[in-house]
Amino acid sequence: MNLRTPIKHCRNCGAAVVYRIPDDGDTKLRAICPACQTVHYENPINVVGTVPYWGDRVLLCKRNIEPRFGKWTLPAGFMELGESPAEGAARETVEEAGAQFEMEELFTVMSVLHVGQVHLYYRARLLSEVFDPGFETIEARLFTEAEIPWDEIAFRTVSQTLQHYFADRRTGQFALHHASIV
Amino acid sequence: MNLRTPIKHCRNCGAAVVYRIPDDGDTKLRAICPACQTVHYENPINVVGTVPYWGDRVLLCKRNIEPRFGKWTLPAGFMELGESPAEGAARETVEEAGAQFEMEELFTVMSVLHVGQVHLYYRARLLSEVFDPGFETIEARLFTEAEIPWDEIAFRTVSQTLQHYFADRRTGQFALHHASIV
Repeated sequence: MNLRTPIKHCRNCGAAVVYRIPDDGDTKLRAICPACQTVHYENPINVVGTVPYWGDRVLLCKRNIEPRFGKWTLPAGFMELGESPAEGAARETVEEAGAQFEMEELFTVMSVLHVGQVHLYYRARLLSEVFDPGFETIEARLFTEAEIPWDEIAFRTVSQTLQHYFADRRTGQFALHHASIV
Repeated sequence: MNLRTPIKHCRNCGAAVVYRIPDDGDTKLRAICPACQTVHYENPINVVGTVPYWGDRVLLCKRNIEPRFGKWTLPAGFMELGESPAEGAARETVEEAGAQFEMEELFTVMSVLHVGQVHLYYRARLLSEVFDPGFETIEARLFTEAEIPWDEIAFRTVSQTLQHYFADRRTGQFALHHASIV
Protein backbone atom coordinates (compact mmCIF):
# COMPACT_ATOMS: atom_id res chain seq x y z
CA MET A 1 0.00 0.00 0.00
CA ASN A 2 1.18 3.47 -0.74
CA LEU A 3 -1.69 5.90 -0.31
CA ARG A 4 -0.40 9.18 0.95
CA THR A 5 -1.90 10.95 3.91
CA PRO A 6 -1.74 14.77 4.14
CA ILE A 7 1.50 16.21 5.52
CA LYS A 8 0.71 17.51 9.02
CA HIS A 9 4.18 17.45 10.57
CA CYS A 10 7.74 18.18 9.41
CA ARG A 11 9.72 15.07 8.49
CA ASN A 12 12.88 16.78 9.71
CA CYS A 13 11.93 18.14 13.14
CA GLY A 14 8.35 17.03 13.84
CA ALA A 15 6.83 20.53 14.17
CA ALA A 16 3.34 21.14 12.72
CA VAL A 17 3.61 22.44 9.15
CA VAL A 18 1.75 25.35 7.56
CA TYR A 19 0.63 25.45 3.92
CA ARG A 20 1.83 28.49 2.01
CA ILE A 21 3.60 29.46 -1.22
CA PRO A 22 7.39 29.52 -0.66
CA ASP A 23 9.28 32.81 -1.16
CA ASP A 24 11.63 31.40 -3.83
CA GLY A 25 9.50 32.09 -6.91
CA ASP A 26 7.41 28.92 -6.52
CA THR A 27 3.73 29.37 -7.36
CA LYS A 28 2.21 26.38 -5.53
CA LEU A 29 1.09 25.77 -1.96
CA ARG A 30 3.61 23.61 -0.10
CA ALA A 31 3.74 22.21 3.41
CA ILE A 32 6.42 24.34 5.08
CA CYS A 33 7.90 23.89 8.53
CA PRO A 34 7.77 27.14 10.56
CA ALA A 35 10.48 25.78 12.89
CA CYS A 36 13.24 24.53 10.55
CA GLN A 37 11.95 26.01 7.22
CA THR A 38 11.95 22.66 5.40
CA VAL A 39 9.69 22.75 2.31
CA HIS A 40 7.89 19.43 1.80
CA TYR A 41 7.19 18.83 -1.89
CA GLU A 42 4.70 16.22 -3.05
CA ASN A 43 5.12 14.76 -6.50
CA PRO A 44 3.50 12.00 -8.52
CA ILE A 45 4.93 8.52 -8.03
CA ASN A 46 5.32 5.76 -10.57
CA VAL A 47 3.56 2.41 -10.75
CA VAL A 48 5.49 0.08 -13.06
CA GLY A 49 4.37 -3.19 -14.61
CA THR A 50 4.32 -5.48 -17.61
CA VAL A 51 2.06 -6.95 -20.26
CA PRO A 52 3.47 -10.52 -20.24
CA TYR A 53 2.38 -12.39 -23.37
CA TRP A 54 2.60 -15.98 -24.59
CA GLY A 55 1.42 -16.42 -28.16
CA ASP A 56 -2.01 -14.80 -28.36
CA ARG A 57 -2.52 -14.87 -24.59
CA VAL A 58 -1.71 -12.38 -21.82
CA LEU A 59 -0.85 -13.15 -18.20
CA LEU A 60 -3.14 -11.74 -15.51
CA CYS A 61 -2.90 -12.08 -11.73
CA LYS A 62 -5.88 -12.41 -9.38
CA ARG A 63 -5.23 -10.06 -6.47
CA ASN A 64 -4.82 -11.53 -3.00
CA ILE A 65 -4.51 -8.06 -1.42
CA GLU A 66 -6.51 -4.88 -1.12
CA PRO A 67 -7.39 -2.71 -2.92
CA ARG A 68 -9.44 -4.76 -5.43
CA PHE A 69 -9.01 -8.10 -3.68
CA GLY A 70 -10.09 -10.89 -6.05
CA LYS A 71 -9.93 -8.74 -9.19
CA TRP A 72 -7.54 -9.39 -12.08
CA THR A 73 -4.53 -7.22 -12.85
CA LEU A 74 -1.37 -7.08 -14.88
CA PRO A 75 1.71 -7.52 -12.67
CA ALA A 76 2.60 -4.02 -11.40
CA GLY A 77 3.52 -2.09 -8.29
CA PHE A 78 5.20 1.01 -6.91
CA MET A 79 8.64 1.77 -8.30
CA GLU A 80 11.31 1.67 -5.58
CA LEU A 81 14.39 3.83 -5.02
CA GLY A 82 17.49 2.38 -6.69
CA GLU A 83 15.78 0.84 -9.71
CA SER A 84 14.81 1.99 -13.20
CA PRO A 85 11.16 1.79 -14.33
CA ALA A 86 11.94 -1.35 -16.39
CA GLU A 87 13.78 -2.96 -13.46
CA GLY A 88 10.84 -2.22 -11.19
CA ALA A 89 8.38 -3.63 -13.73
CA ALA A 90 10.48 -6.81 -14.01
CA ARG A 91 10.71 -7.14 -10.21
CA GLU A 92 6.95 -6.87 -9.83
CA THR A 93 6.43 -9.50 -12.53
CA VAL A 94 8.69 -11.91 -10.65
CA GLU A 95 7.11 -11.11 -7.27
CA GLU A 96 3.47 -11.26 -8.32
CA ALA A 97 3.54 -13.95 -11.01
CA GLY A 98 6.82 -15.85 -10.64
CA ALA A 99 7.07 -15.60 -14.42
CA GLN A 100 10.11 -16.08 -16.66
CA PHE A 101 10.23 -13.45 -19.39
CA GLU A 102 12.26 -11.06 -21.46
CA MET A 103 11.52 -7.34 -21.12
CA GLU A 104 10.51 -5.46 -24.26
CA GLU A 105 9.54 -1.87 -25.05
CA LEU A 106 7.65 0.67 -22.98
CA PHE A 107 4.04 0.37 -24.07
CA THR A 108 1.74 2.67 -22.06
CA VAL A 109 2.30 5.81 -19.97
CA MET A 110 -0.88 6.63 -18.07
CA SER A 111 -1.37 9.46 -15.63
CA VAL A 112 -3.87 8.77 -12.89
CA LEU A 113 -4.36 12.39 -11.90
CA HIS A 114 -6.61 12.06 -8.84
CA VAL A 115 -4.10 9.87 -7.01
CA GLY A 116 -0.90 11.51 -8.30
CA GLN A 117 0.42 8.42 -10.07
CA VAL A 118 2.00 7.63 -13.42
CA HIS A 119 1.52 4.01 -14.58
CA LEU A 120 4.17 2.69 -16.97
CA TYR A 121 3.66 -0.69 -18.63
CA TYR A 122 6.29 -2.56 -20.66
CA ARG A 123 5.64 -5.49 -22.96
CA ALA A 124 7.33 -8.70 -21.74
CA ARG A 125 7.74 -11.86 -23.81
CA LEU A 126 7.09 -14.91 -21.62
CA LEU A 127 9.66 -17.69 -21.85
CA SER A 128 7.45 -20.28 -20.12
CA GLU A 129 3.78 -20.79 -19.34
CA VAL A 130 4.59 -22.04 -15.85
CA PHE A 131 4.08 -19.45 -13.09
CA ASP A 132 4.89 -19.35 -9.40
CA PRO A 133 2.90 -16.45 -7.95
CA GLY A 134 3.81 -14.84 -4.62
CA PHE A 135 1.59 -14.05 -1.64
CA GLU A 136 -0.01 -11.03 -3.35
CA THR A 137 -1.56 -13.25 -6.03
CA ILE A 138 -4.31 -15.89 -5.69
CA GLU A 139 -3.84 -17.22 -9.20
CA ALA A 140 -1.78 -16.33 -12.29
CA ARG A 141 -3.05 -17.48 -15.68
CA LEU A 142 -3.08 -16.74 -19.38
CA PHE A 143 -6.09 -15.24 -21.17
CA THR A 144 -6.87 -14.84 -24.86
CA GLU A 145 -8.56 -11.56 -25.78
CA ALA A 146 -11.96 -13.33 -25.82
CA GLU A 147 -11.35 -14.76 -22.34
CA ILE A 148 -10.35 -11.48 -20.62
CA PRO A 149 -12.73 -10.88 -17.67
CA TRP A 150 -13.30 -7.20 -18.56
CA ASP A 151 -15.76 -6.64 -15.72
CA GLU A 152 -13.33 -8.09 -13.20
CA ILE A 153 -10.24 -6.02 -14.05
CA ALA A 154 -8.79 -4.29 -10.98
CA PHE A 155 -7.74 -0.93 -12.44
CA ARG A 156 -8.63 1.26 -15.43
CA THR A 157 -4.97 1.57 -16.45
CA VAL A 158 -4.89 -2.22 -16.73
CA SER A 159 -8.02 -2.51 -18.90
CA GLN A 160 -6.84 0.36 -21.13
CA THR A 161 -3.38 -1.18 -21.47
CA LEU A 162 -4.94 -4.55 -22.38
CA GLN A 163 -7.20 -2.89 -24.98
CA HIS A 164 -4.19 -1.18 -26.58
CA TYR A 165 -2.23 -4.43 -26.51
CA PHE A 166 -4.85 -6.49 -28.34
CA ALA A 167 -5.59 -3.66 -30.81
CA ASP A 168 -1.89 -3.24 -31.66
CA ARG A 169 -1.43 -7.01 -31.84
CA ARG A 170 -4.08 -7.16 -34.56
CA THR A 171 -2.19 -4.61 -36.65
CA GLY A 172 1.21 -6.14 -35.82
CA GLN A 173 2.56 -2.67 -34.92
CA PHE A 174 3.13 -1.81 -31.26
CA ALA A 175 3.16 1.93 -30.54
CA LEU A 176 3.71 3.85 -27.31
CA HIS A 177 0.35 4.97 -25.88
CA HIS A 178 -0.31 7.90 -23.56
CA ALA A 179 -3.46 8.65 -21.59
CA SER A 180 -4.66 10.59 -18.57
CA ILE A 181 -7.32 9.28 -16.23
CA VAL A 182 -9.04 12.01 -14.18
CA MET B 1 14.74 22.58 -5.40
CA ASN B 2 13.54 19.19 -4.40
CA LEU B 3 16.31 17.30 -2.66
CA ARG B 4 14.89 15.02 -0.06
CA THR B 5 16.17 14.92 3.48
CA PRO B 6 15.95 11.69 5.51
CA ILE B 7 12.62 11.04 7.21
CA LYS B 8 13.16 11.62 10.93
CA HIS B 9 9.60 12.38 12.06
CA CYS B 10 6.11 11.11 11.19
CA ARG B 11 4.23 13.36 8.76
CA ASN B 12 0.98 12.41 10.44
CA CYS B 13 1.71 12.89 14.17
CA GLY B 14 5.26 14.26 14.44
CA ALA B 15 6.69 11.36 16.53
CA ALA B 16 10.25 10.19 15.77
CA VAL B 17 10.17 7.32 13.26
CA VAL B 18 12.08 4.03 13.38
CA TYR B 19 13.41 2.20 10.32
CA ARG B 20 12.28 -1.41 10.05
CA ILE B 21 10.70 -3.84 7.60
CA PRO B 22 6.88 -3.70 7.89
CA ASP B 23 4.97 -6.83 8.92
CA ASP B 24 2.80 -6.92 5.77
CA GLY B 25 5.09 -8.98 3.53
CA ASP B 26 7.23 -6.02 2.48
CA THR B 27 10.95 -6.74 2.17
CA LYS B 28 12.39 -3.24 2.44
CA LEU B 29 13.31 -0.95 5.33
CA ARG B 30 10.71 1.81 5.74
CA ALA B 31 10.39 4.73 8.13
CA ILE B 32 7.58 3.64 10.45
CA CYS B 33 5.91 5.68 13.18
CA PRO B 34 5.86 3.83 16.50
CA ALA B 35 3.06 6.12 17.74
CA CYS B 36 0.46 6.03 14.92
CA GLN B 37 1.91 3.15 12.80
CA THR B 38 2.09 5.19 9.58
CA VAL B 39 4.51 3.65 7.08
CA HIS B 40 6.39 6.33 5.13
CA TYR B 41 7.33 5.08 1.67
CA GLU B 42 9.92 6.84 -0.45
CA ASN B 43 9.75 6.45 -4.20
CA PRO B 44 11.53 7.91 -7.21
CA ILE B 45 10.13 11.19 -8.53
CA ASN B 46 9.93 12.38 -12.10
CA VAL B 47 11.75 15.25 -13.76
CA VAL B 48 10.02 16.15 -17.03
CA GLY B 49 11.30 18.27 -19.87
CA THR B 50 11.56 18.84 -23.59
CA VAL B 51 14.01 18.90 -26.48
CA PRO B 52 12.66 22.02 -28.26
CA TYR B 53 13.98 22.16 -31.82
CA TRP B 54 13.91 24.70 -34.65
CA GLY B 55 15.32 23.37 -37.90
CA ASP B 56 18.74 21.93 -37.05
CA ARG B 57 19.00 23.83 -33.78
CA VAL B 58 17.97 22.97 -30.20
CA LEU B 59 16.89 25.37 -27.46
CA LEU B 60 18.98 25.48 -24.30
CA CYS B 61 18.50 27.60 -21.17
CA LYS B 62 21.32 29.06 -19.08
CA ARG B 63 20.44 28.40 -15.44
CA ASN B 64 19.85 31.35 -13.14
CA ILE B 65 19.38 29.04 -10.12
CA GLU B 66 21.30 26.42 -8.19
CA PRO B 67 22.27 23.70 -8.68
CA ARG B 68 24.50 24.31 -11.71
CA PHE B 69 24.02 28.08 -11.82
CA GLY B 70 25.29 29.42 -15.17
CA LYS B 71 25.29 26.00 -16.89
CA TRP B 72 23.11 25.16 -19.89
CA THR B 73 20.13 22.82 -19.71
CA LEU B 74 17.10 21.66 -21.62
CA PRO B 75 13.89 23.05 -20.09
CA ALA B 76 12.88 20.59 -17.36
CA GLY B 77 11.72 20.37 -13.78
CA PHE B 78 9.89 18.30 -11.20
CA MET B 79 6.55 16.91 -12.26
CA GLU B 80 3.71 18.25 -10.11
CA LEU B 81 0.56 16.58 -8.77
CA GLY B 82 -2.40 16.99 -11.12
CA GLU B 83 -0.49 16.92 -14.39
CA SER B 84 0.69 14.24 -16.82
CA PRO B 85 4.41 13.93 -17.67
CA ALA B 86 3.82 15.66 -21.03
CA GLU B 87 1.82 18.46 -19.38
CA GLY B 88 4.61 18.97 -16.84
CA ALA B 89 7.23 19.02 -19.58
CA ALA B 90 5.22 21.63 -21.49
CA ARG B 91 4.73 23.75 -18.34
CA GLU B 92 8.47 23.77 -17.64
CA THR B 93 9.19 24.76 -21.23
CA VAL B 94 6.86 27.74 -20.88
CA GLU B 95 8.21 28.70 -17.44
CA GLU B 96 11.93 28.40 -18.20
CA ALA B 97 12.06 29.45 -21.86
CA GLY B 98 8.78 31.23 -22.66
CA ALA B 99 8.77 29.20 -25.85
CA GLN B 100 5.90 28.49 -28.24
CA PHE B 101 5.91 24.88 -29.36
CA GLU B 102 3.98 21.73 -30.17
CA MET B 103 4.64 18.65 -28.01
CA GLU B 104 5.80 15.51 -29.81
CA GLU B 105 6.78 12.01 -28.72
CA LEU B 106 8.48 10.81 -25.54
CA PHE B 107 12.17 10.62 -26.42
CA THR B 108 14.30 9.61 -23.38
CA VAL B 109 13.54 7.84 -20.09
CA MET B 110 16.59 8.10 -17.84
CA SER B 111 16.87 6.80 -14.30
CA VAL B 112 19.21 8.75 -12.08
CA LEU B 113 19.58 6.07 -9.45
CA HIS B 114 21.63 7.86 -6.78
CA VAL B 115 19.05 10.63 -6.41
CA GLY B 116 15.90 8.53 -6.96
CA GLN B 117 14.75 10.36 -10.07
CA VAL B 118 13.40 9.42 -13.49
CA HIS B 119 14.00 12.04 -16.20
CA LEU B 120 11.54 12.00 -19.10
CA TYR B 121 12.22 14.17 -22.15
CA TYR B 122 9.74 14.79 -24.98
CA ARG B 123 10.59 16.24 -28.37
CA ALA B 124 8.89 19.61 -28.95
CA ARG B 125 8.66 21.37 -32.30
CA LEU B 126 9.21 25.11 -31.82
CA LEU B 127 6.70 27.42 -33.53
CA SER B 128 8.82 30.55 -33.13
CA GLU B 129 12.43 31.42 -32.43
CA VAL B 130 11.42 34.19 -30.05
CA PHE B 131 11.73 33.27 -26.36
CA ASP B 132 10.67 34.93 -23.13
CA PRO B 133 12.53 33.13 -20.34
CA GLY B 134 11.37 33.29 -16.71
CA PHE B 135 13.40 34.08 -13.59
CA GLU B 136 15.05 30.63 -13.54
CA THR B 137 16.81 31.32 -16.83
CA ILE B 138 19.56 33.86 -17.63
CA GLU B 139 19.35 33.31 -21.37
CA ALA B 140 17.49 31.02 -23.78
CA ARG B 141 19.00 30.44 -27.21
CA LEU B 142 19.24 27.98 -30.09
CA PHE B 143 22.34 25.86 -30.74
CA THR B 144 23.34 23.74 -33.71
CA GLU B 145 25.06 20.47 -32.83
CA ALA B 146 28.48 22.05 -33.49
CA GLU B 147 27.66 24.96 -31.17
CA ILE B 148 26.50 22.92 -28.15
CA PRO B 149 28.69 23.84 -25.14
CA TRP B 150 29.24 20.21 -24.10
CA ASP B 151 31.51 21.12 -21.18
CA GLU B 152 28.94 23.55 -19.86
CA ILE B 153 25.87 21.28 -19.81
CA ALA B 154 24.21 21.22 -16.38
CA PHE B 155 23.21 17.54 -16.09
CA ARG B 156 24.24 14.22 -17.61
CA THR B 157 20.66 13.38 -18.60
CA VAL B 158 20.65 16.59 -20.66
CA SER B 159 23.92 15.83 -22.49
CA GLN B 160 22.83 12.22 -23.16
CA THR B 161 19.43 13.35 -24.40
CA LEU B 162 21.10 15.90 -26.72
CA GLN B 163 23.50 13.22 -28.04
CA HIS B 164 20.57 10.90 -28.80
CA TYR B 165 18.67 13.74 -30.43
CA PHE B 166 21.43 14.71 -32.86
CA ALA B 167 22.30 11.05 -33.61
CA ASP B 168 18.66 10.22 -34.38
CA ARG B 169 18.27 13.41 -36.39
CA ARG B 170 21.08 12.29 -38.67
CA THR B 171 19.28 9.01 -39.39
CA GLY B 172 15.88 10.71 -39.61
CA GLN B 173 14.41 8.08 -37.24
CA PHE B 174 13.58 9.08 -33.69
CA ALA B 175 13.44 6.15 -31.26
CA LEU B 176 12.66 6.01 -27.53
CA HIS B 177 15.90 5.77 -25.53
CA HIS B 178 16.36 4.34 -22.05
CA ALA B 179 19.35 4.67 -19.77
CA SER B 180 20.32 4.44 -16.12
CA ILE B 181 22.86 6.76 -14.53
CA VAL B 182 24.37 5.36 -11.32
